[in-house]
Amino acid sequence: MDKGILYGVGVGPGDPGLLTLKAVETIRQCPVVAAPRTPRGGTAALDIAREAVDIGGKEIVFLDFAMRRDPAVRAAAHRVSVERLRPHLDAGRSVATLALGDVSLYASFRYLADRLRREGYAIRMVPGVPSFCAAAARLGTSLTDMTTPLQIIPDGAAVEPDLTRPGTVVWLKSGAGLGQILTRLDAAGRLADVAVVQRCGMAGERVFRGRQCLEADSAYFSLVILKGKAERDDA
Amino acid sequence: MDKGILYGVGVGPGDPGLLTLKAVETIRQCPVVAAPRTPRGGTAALDIAREAVDIGGKEIVFLDFAMRRDPAVRAAAHRVSVERLRPHLDAGRSVATLALGDVSLYASFRYLADRLRREGYAIRMVPGVPSFCAAAARLGTSLTDMTTPLQIIPDGAAVEPDLTRPGTVVWLKSGAGLGQILTRLDAAGRLADVAVVQRCGMAGERVFRGRQCLEADSAYFSLVILKGKAERDDA
Repeated sequence: MDKGILYGVGVGPGDPGLLTLKAVETIRQCPVVAAPRTPRGGTAALDIAREAVDIGGKEIVFLDFAMRRDPAVRAAAHRVSVERLRPHLDAGRSVATLALGDVSLYASFRYLADRLRREGYAIRMVPGVPSFCAAAARLGTSLTDMTTPLQIIPDGAAVEPDLTRPGTVVWLKSGAGLGQILTRLDAAGRLADVAVVQRCGMAGERVFRGRQCLEADSAYFSLVILKGKAERDDA
Repeated sequence: MDKGILYGVGVGPGDPGLLTLKAVETIRQCPVVAAPRTPRGGTAALDIAREAVDIGGKEIVFLDFAMRRDPAVRAAAHRVSVERLRPHLDAGRSVATLALGDVSLYASFRYLADRLRREGYAIRMVPGVPSFCAAAARLGTSLTDMTTPLQIIPDGAAVEPDLTRPGTVVWLKSGAGLGQILTRLDAAGRLADVAVVQRCGMAGERVFRGRQCLEADSAYFSLVILKGKAERDDA
């Protein structure tokens, strides 16, 4: 019997309309859907997919990822997830593993895929709309000019960007990190070029611009966007 | 009479399955579709959208963007495009302006939107899947670990990234720029961590890894991906 295929499917950051046609079709064709679950029971990716695809009748496998930095703790969570997925693949059932946003960016799918690929299972990825693209659309703004670089700095990154270089910077921030980066941007006199988007495309979405950003509640996961200087577009 | 709305719609980088549900719905509801056209008559974004949505019966407006760096030349092309769009908006017809990949990243839509917003027209953006996310999925790889930064360097950028910093770098390269960056990566001893993807999701797609990348034909627009070192994921 052929083994099932492990699909990683980006479902976009919140609005169910941002699933791609291919994401919908992939979820539809898989008898099993695997969905990340936070320690508090949050299943955002599954909630989004449910709005776009009928998943009634499918088996749901929850993946309890550790939200901790300790590699040993995280690896243990990945091992448990792999144990939950393997029986389905061995029985010939393909699995659509959901990821918020795009599946190649800051998604735990990567660790499951690496482990199961080493065991000989087939892996396929369906890309999705990243949170920062959806946030820019929500703000009605372009992230970049034609020739300016873009940097994405995730929560917990060991390095910070040089703010004197040209281009746009996006920070993905949770908790106290939000206040720290806004304080730094204020000190650098750049707050006028900053926007913060929280819960993009979900209930409770919040958007802040300029000095307003200082009022953003750090209890929510936040996207902080620092726009570089605009290029000339001669009238 | 209400004026029409100018929509910017990202159609993804090539595979029509990567249009979002919202992109399909937006194009469907607009009586006018505006599509970028290269000097040689290439209309990639329109070709992709056509595969996913029936656009028969819609009026097609071609936008001839200058592929030149001279701001005055480019501004003239933007002015001409705005003149082609304005009559439709004034007559109450909404326009879906197509962009390859995502509409907030390196898309000329930005310049049209800025001009028409200043004239009081309503602008909305529908995000799409960027080329680098689709290329990563095609390679079956994650672009990042959970805490590594990502840098996107477009063709013509005035600055180059510091290769000694951690994280992943993606260059968008056309023409001679491809050979230059590959030579630089080879000299830095990093070619083993490099992949090149051309025409991702389109006919004639090409994928190169490691030293193979040196064989890539610079006649095609190329995505060059340099992966940072992988994080520990303790077995």
